[in-house]
Amino acid sequence: MEQAGTIAFNSGAVPHPVTSGPDAIKERIFSQIRSDLERIEAEIERQLTTRIPMISLVGRYIMGSGGKRLRPLLMILAARLCGYRGKRDAALSVVFEFVHAATLLHDDVVDHAEVRRSKPAANTIWGNPAVVLIGDFLYSKAILMAVGHDKLSILEVLTDATTKMAEGEVLQLINSDNLEIDEREYLEVVTRKTAVLISAACQIGGLFASGSPSHVEALREYGHHLGIAFQLIDDTLDYTGDLKELGKPVGNDIQEGKVTLPLIVALQNGDAAATARLREIFGADEILREDFLEARDLVIRAGGIDYTQRLALEHVNEAKEALSAFAPHPTRDLLLDIADYVVFRRA
Amino acid sequence: MEQAGTIAFNSGAVPHPVTSGPDAIKERIFSQIRSDLERIEAEIERQLTTRIPMISLVGRYIMGSGGKRLRPLLMILAARLCGYRGKRDAALSVVFEFVHAATLLHDDVVDHAEVRRSKPAANTIWGNPAVVLIGDFLYSKAILMAVGHDKLSILEVLTDATTKMAEGEVLQLINSDNLEIDEREYLEVVTRKTAVLISAACQIGGLFASGSPSHVEALREYGHHLGIAFQLIDDTLDYTGDLKELGKPVGNDIQEGKVTLPLIVALQNGDAAATARLREIFGADEILREDFLEARDLVIRAGGIDYTQRLALEHVNEAKEALSAFAPHPTRDLLLDIADYVVFRRA
Repeated sequence: MEQAGTIAFNSGAVPHPVTSGPDAIKERIFSQIRSDLERIEAEIERQLTTRIPMISLVGRYIMGSGGKRLRPLLMILAARLCGYRGKRDAALSVVFEFVHAATLLHDDVVDHAEVRRSKPAANTIWGNPAVVLIGDFLYSKAILMAVGHDKLSILEVLTDATTKMAEGEVLQLINSDNLEIDEREYLEVVTRKTAVLISAACQIGGLFASGSPSHVEALREYGHHLGIAFQLIDDTLDYTGDLKELGKPVGNDIQEGKVTLPLIVALQNGDAAATARLREIFGADEILREDFLEARDLVIRAGGIDYTQRLALEHVNEAKEALSAFAPHPTRDLLLDIADYVVFRRA
Repeated sequence: MEQAGTIAFNSGAVPHPVTSGPDAIKERIFSQIRSDLERIEAEIERQLTTRIPMISLVGRYIMGSGGKRLRPLLMILAARLCGYRGKRDAALSVVFEFVHAATLLHDDVVDHAEVRRSKPAANTIWGNPAVVLIGDFLYSKAILMAVGHDKLSILEVLTDATTKMAEGEVLQLINSDNLEIDEREYLEVVTRKTAVLISAACQIGGLFASGSPSHVEALREYGHHLGIAFQLIDDTLDYTGDLKELGKPVGNDIQEGKVTLPLIVALQNGDAAATARLREIFGADEILREDFLEARDLVIRAGGIDYTQRLALEHVNEAKEALSAFAPHPTRDLLLDIADYVVFRRA
């Protein structure tokens, strides 16, 4: 990962402050977004206050469990890069956290998840019915909040995104357990499942700030590539991450039968024995811990992790390249740092 | 029911064609809406065509299973009453059928339903994960379709409605099994769960046709009372309906522990022995067929069905009264007939 990060800095199409490593980038990012994060947290809390205590409770649980607030933050920074200087951005930004939280709740039901970010999954505490319905509430509430901003262009992008996301979730379900899925199909799922919402957050930040069409398009593109890179790194962390840092058991997606790019590459590029063994392990009804450790080694040796990290890096560079539509600006540097952080992060 | 219907005709605040009975009303309604229903069906089919066959398949299954298209039809008629004469109404009308279908899919997951309208519930065929995600898709798609109509007022009413509906579903879940729920709490659930969407369909019909604020408000009120009456009658049919006519097993909601008004009234008004026996039956983990038949007799004898039918009738009359804001018009007569049909129907 350290090496991948170094490549990112050297090949970034847009020059920006040189840094010494992931901790320095992280520190630089967080020192600049502290007050934005506080505004985001306050707005989430305000919007979660309902007369129905169970909704507030489950909402706080899913949204309070260590999320990065990446989507609201990107919307706020995108608006700022397009010249917005007011305070109404926080109210719109949390729309993306609400949509994201709704998908996490429904994903946990769909995946029969037991753990999310080192805590029991919401469905194990409140049961599937409550979690399905509270997911529906958070999603409806998100759209209602967005409608309050009186701009049809924002609603067009948002609802187009959520519809594509829902299609992506169905595609992923259909393809789970499918060892024959290829890179193109996998990238379509990743785009719909992750990139579309991140891209919409960036694009909507631009629309909210009444940015020029070319700036709005640049932000859309930045978010699209950032989102793909983010998910690709997530999928490598499922093989390489450490339970403590990642907040979910290593191999979680694998246990659920999700076929991601590291495995797809290994099945394509591994030698006959490795491929046969991987098919055997992933074709089984249950994947035991020692089988997972063996599979992980086979995937790493067949180059599955390297390939996926390299592809993530390419997308990070395309994300950064898109920002060349903007003149130099501290907020542009921050968005470049965030792009680098995506490939650097270990959790 | 026959008697309730007779009362409806005599006490309707707005004069409209006298009829001889439910079959005559039904025939009169259907003869006038045939071409609207055809346009609605064609639009549903068009919007269900996606690249993901499973979505089309499940969508057609849930939307093709004998629904009345009440919500799209009300939107179209409301727009017509406000003077709309074009063809774009069908595209907006199906938004309400998509939202309704999404809630049916999620309800089936929440209730662990096995049967809906005499057919296996979708979750028994495709499983809970697919049904949750395809529900999400239909809901997102509905909002996306509504955004296409370029009117923020429509989106405000629609998303306010869906948010209230989601809250209502959570409230209902919290109150299931709760024999202490009172009439006021029950009516709040009914309003949110059913009346809010029917009311939104009527109101949005008016907004779509650029009706006057007082006409739009009259339509909202019509839909609100019609929706409450519709759900009240649904709840009586759970006790009095016949499996064949109703399309779901009699006592279905009861098996699921749903406490509806007929039971609430019986628990309040029944003698001590009846109340104790009802508490015993509904407090049990499983309700056997003979217990249900006994409970049904106790509820009927304690006046639970009569009271609920009378309340439905009051709401139907309030719905009809709201339409006095409009001058006499064949579409107004049709909406009056639909209100009467709601209390007349046996399925």
